[in-house]
Amino acid sequence: MALIDQMAGVLSQVRALRPLVHQITNYVSVNDCANIVLAYGGAPVMADDAEEVVEMVAIASVLVLNIGTLNSRTIQAMLLAGQEANVRGIPVVLDPVGVGATRLRTDTAQRIMAEVKLAVIRGNASEIAVLAGEIATTRGVDAGSTVGNTMLLGQELATRLGAVVAITGAQDIITDGCRIILCDNGHPLLTRVTGTGCMVSALVGAGVGVTADYLLAAAAGVVSMGLAGEYAAEASSYGNLGAFRSHIIDFIGNIAPSHILAGARIQLHA
Amino acid sequence: MALIDQMAGVLSQVRALRPLVHQITNYVSVNDCANIVLAYGGAPVMADDAEEVVEMVAIASVLVLNIGTLNSRTIQAMLLAGQEANVRGIPVVLDPVGVGATRLRTDTAQRIMAEVKLAVIRGNASEIAVLAGEIATTRGVDAGSTVGNTMLLGQELATRLGAVVAITGAQDIITDGCRIILCDNGHPLLTRVTGTGCMVSALVGAGVGVTADYLLAAAAGVVSMGLAGEYAAEASSYGNLGAFRSHIIDFIGNIAPSHILAGARIQLHA
Amino acid sequence: MALIDQMAGVLSQVRALRPLVHQITNYVSVNDCANIVLAYGGAPVMADDAEEVVEMVAIASVLVLNIGTLNSRTIQAMLLAGQEANVRGIPVVLDPVGVGATRLRTDTAQRIMAEVKLAVIRGNASEIAVLAGEIATTRGVDAGSTVGNTMLLGQELATRLGAVVAITGAQDIITDGCRIILCDNGHPLLTRVTGTGCMVSALVGAGVGVTADYLLAAAAGVVSMGLAGEYAAEASSYGNLGAFRSHIIDFIGNIAPSHILAGARIQLHA
Repeated sequence: MALIDQMAGVLSQVRALRPLVHQITNYVSVNDCANIVLAYGGAPVMADDAEEVVEMVAIASVLVLNIGTLNSRTIQAMLLAGQEANVRGIPVVLDPVGVGATRLRTDTAQRIMAEVKLAVIRGNASEIAVLAGEIATTRGVDAGSTVGNTMLLGQELATRLGAVVAITGAQDIITDGCRIILCDNGHPLLTRVTGTGCMVSALVGAGVGVTADYLLAAAAGVVSMGLAGEYAAEASSYGNLGAFRSHIIDFIGNIAPSHILAGARIQLHA
Repeated sequence: MALIDQMAGVLSQVRALRPLVHQITNYVSVNDCANIVLAYGGAPVMADDAEEVVEMVAIASVLVLNIGTLNSRTIQAMLLAGQEANVRGIPVVLDPVGVGATRLRTDTAQRIMAEVKLAVIRGNASEIAVLAGEIATTRGVDAGSTVGNTMLLGQELATRLGAVVAITGAQDIITDGCRIILCDNGHPLLTRVTGTGCMVSALVGAGVGVTADYLLAAAAGVVSMGLAGEYAAEASSYGNLGAFRSHIIDFIGNIAPSHILAGARIQLHA
Repeated sequence: MALIDQMAGVLSQVRALRPLVHQITNYVSVNDCANIVLAYGGAPVMADDAEEVVEMVAIASVLVLNIGTLNSRTIQAMLLAGQEANVRGIPVVLDPVGVGATRLRTDTAQRIMAEVKLAVIRGNASEIAVLAGEIATTRGVDAGSTVGNTMLLGQELATRLGAVVAITGAQDIITDGCRIILCDNGHPLLTRVTGTGCMVSALVGAGVGVTADYLLAAAAGVVSMGLAGEYAAEASSYGNLGAFRSHIIDFIGNIAPSHILAGARIQLHA
C-alpha cells in the first residue's frame, strides 16, 4: 500500500478508535490542543499533577509531554507519567518547546529523553538541533547544532533514541533514522498563530495512539496540520489571523482520508 | 408563573444584577468559562490561591469549583473558598470533571461534598453516577453506578446533599431530589468542543448568583447552553467546529428571555 | 514629527524588529496575550518559573508582568525576572489586574513597584487609583482613591515611579507625569470580552520592546486596541461576542501605520 494511503488510514483509525490522548502541556495552547484532538477524532484529557498522572496515563492510548511552561511540579508529573507509560507499553510523544532557551528546558528535555522511552519527538529545526547537539556533546562529539543540516541531525537523533523525529518548518522532515518523509504542505500563516506547533504534536499523539507505525502517525499529523493551514489561509483571505485560527479547527473537524489522498505533498527522501 | 417564565426571569436577573462569579477552575477551559459568564451578563473573576480566595469569595455572588486540572495547591484553595462561602451564605456550584478517572479526583470531589455545602452539582451521567455510587458505598450500599438509572441516582444524590443535581447529556436532567426537570435542548456538536460542560457549570453559577431557587438557575443555564448549541450548529453549517465554538459565545451574548420562552423544550417529570 | 506619526512609527518598529515579549501572566487570557503579540508583529514567550525566568528575560526585549492569577511560585518568578530585567536594562511593564480586590494582589503590586523599576503600568481607573492611593497612604497622605480624579492620580503615580501610566477606559489616559495623552478610540464591547485589558498591556509591552519612548509605545498599544475594538464591533454586527473577539486578532494582524494615522483620536492634554 502506498505511503499516502497508509497515512489516510491513520486518520480513519483515529476516527474509529477515538484514542484517549493524555497531555501534560503548557497553559498557553492547552485549550487549542484539547480542541484539535477532539476535532481530529480523539479524546483529550489533561492532568498534570504527580498525584494523578500515573492513574490517568494508565487509561490513556498515548501520552503527550509538552515543556512549554514548565515548573518543578509538572516536571515531576511528566517523568512519572512517562515512566508509567513505558511500563504499560503506552507510547509517549515529546514536544520540546523552546528547548535551548533556558537550562531548565534543556535539562528537562534531556532528562525525559534519558528516563523515558519516546515514540516521537516533534519540534522545529532549532529545537531538534539542540536536542541532537546536546546529546552529541555529552558523547564528546559536537554534532553541530549551528551547522544546520537539519535532516542529518534528525536522523541521528532518531537513530540514537530509537524514536521518530518530526521536524516542522517550511519543509517538514519526518524520520525514524532510516526512512525520511519530506512534506511540503503548510502555509506561512501557521507561524503567526501561537501553539500551532503544539497542536501538531497533539495530532501526532492522536495518531500514535492508534498505530504502532509511529512514522506514519507522525506524518499523518504533520500533513493534516499542513492541509489545515492551506485551507485556513484561503478561507481567511490570507491574513485574518483570528479567522485563520478558527478555520484550522474547522478543517481538522472535517478532514477526511480523501483530503490526505488528494492534498498531501510528500515524498520519501532517497 | 410557569416554569419557563421563571427560567427566563433568571436570565433577566443575571443581566440586571451582574453577579460576580468566582471560579476556581481548570486551565483548559478557563478562558471560555470567563467569556461565557461575561456574555451571559455576569462578571467572572478567577483566583485560585489559598492566599487570596477567602477574600475574593467574600465579594463574590457565587463560587464555582471545577476539578478539571487539580493539584494540591488548588485543592486547598477550593476547600478554603468553599468553607468561607458557606459561612457567608454564598452559594457554591461543583463541576466534578472526570471524577472516577483517578483517586485524586474522586477523593477531592468527595472531600468537597463532605466539607462544603453545595447549591448545585453539574456533571455528566458517569460523573454523577460515581458521586452517587461512591457515597452509597461508604454507607454500605452499592447504588450501582453501572446500573445506569441516571435519574434515580441524580435524585438520590440531590436528596442526600440537599443540593440541586444537573446531569447534562442527550437529555438533560435537573433535580432537587423532589422535582425533576427534563430538557431536550442541545446539539451533538457540543460534545466535540472542549469545555462545553465547564461552560454550562459557569452559566449555572451565574444564575445561582442571582436567585435562591437553584433548580431554576440550573435549568436556565442548561437550557441556555442547549439553545446556544442549536443556534451554533446551524450557524456553523453543522460541522465547522471553530465557527461552532465562536457562535456559542455569539448566542449567549445575545440570548434574551424571549429565546428561552420560545425555544426551551423542557418538561417536569411526573 | 507629530505625535500620531511617532505612534505609527512604533508599530513599524515592532514589525521590523520583532521584539521578544516575555510575559509572566495569568492563565485566563494567556493564549490571547500570546496571539495578539504575534499578530502585532512581536514574538511572545511565556515562562513563569523561578528556575528559568532569569535566563528567559535575559534574551527578551521586554518583560510584561500581569498579576491576574497569582500564587507564591509566580510571585517569586515575577520579582526575580523583574530584577534581572532591571540589571540588564530590559524594560518592564506591569498590569495590576484586580489590585485592591485582595491583599495578595495589593501586596504583590506594591512589592513589584518597590523592588522593580517599571517602564509602564497599564490598568483601569480603579486599579490605578488603588496603586496611587496605597502609595500615598504609606506616605501619610490619602491621595483619595475614591475621589476619582483619575488623571491626577495617574500623573502622581507616574511621577513618583518615574514610569508611564496608561489608564484604559471610555477615555484612555496615558501619562509620564508631565505629558498627558488622551485617547478616544475604542468600543464598549471591549468590556464584554475577557482579557482585553491584558491584551492592551501585551501590545504596550511589544512597543516598549522597540523604543525608549515609553509614552509613545504605550499610546500606540492603547490606540491600536481601540481601533481594533472599533473595527471588530462593526465587523461583528455590534454584538456577536465570539466574532468580535476573533476580529480583534484579525485587525491587529493587519494593522498598518496608515490605520493609526487615519483613525487615532488622540489629543495632548493642555
